[in-house]
Amino acid sequence: MAGPLSEAARVFLSTCPVGTIATLRPDGRVRQTVVYFVLDGDRILISTEAKRGKARDVERTGWASFCVFGHAKPWPSLTVEGPARVIREGVAEPTARILAVIAGAPPTQPPSEDALARAGRVILEIEIAKVYGQSYVG
Amino acid sequence: MAGPLSEAARVFLSTCPVGTIATLRPDGRVRQTVVYFVLDGDRILISTEAKRGKARDVERTGWASFCVFGHAKPWPSLTVEGPARVIREGVAEPTARILAVIAGAPPTQPPSEDALARAGRVILEIEIAKVYGQSYVG
Repeated sequence: MAGPLSEAARVFLSTCPVGTIATLRPDGRVRQTVVYFVLDGDRILISTEAKRGKARDVERTGWASFCVFGHAKPWPSLTVEGPARVIREGVAEPTARILAVIAGAPPTQPPSEDALARAGRVILEIEIAKVYGQSYVG
Repeated sequence: MAGPLSEAARVFLSTCPVGTIATLRPDGRVRQTVVYFVLDGDRILISTEAKRGKARDVERTGWASFCVFGHAKPWPSLTVEGPARVIREGVAEPTARILAVIAGAPPTQPPSEDALARAGRVILEIEIAKVYGQSYVG
């Protein structure tokens, strides 16, 4: 079954390295942070540390919003949202892909799972359940 | 009294034309939208329509979050948040300033208050009560 992303939205998300994740803090207000990401099928994947506020918010609420925009007029943009979770196992491969986005270079040998676990590195996953606010994309 | 913005943060916000506003929808989840803005003292000003979701969210909750980032590596960014409201009167002057940001040109003669009221145009104001996530700014 086709997911909620149009082909144009998919291309757009594949070419943007950063976006703004929004989660709900324990005080019920919004937390927004700029992060690198990769699109993986119908999922947004972000590398972070388990102790970070956004990771704790996702574990508590099971949901996140992610807004991406281009970097020149007319500022193409869209927002996706959906169920979110923190993944602690099998994170080496997606982490390597996100590190490649950060470096602007092809992925290198993935870091070891053990080293990532020791560093508290996790993958924050957002399933794209809904897309809205799509503007000047495609 | 000095507000929460450092001079570097002030310069950064003054040079960025767009940012991502986040509000809470009636369903308790986050709404994120990319908007043009101007910094006015310790306030973020956005031009929108009263009927838009973000304006209704602000009227209902009295709070908004706003995340801004630069448009090249290392993606300087920061998030501000605070009490927010919808302003319906005296909106011509700030609207003209925001239109100038959109046009990338100096402000022109402000539109008339009457014309703006008829079009449902309002100013969404966020008081900058808190700044966090400041990264690579200044």
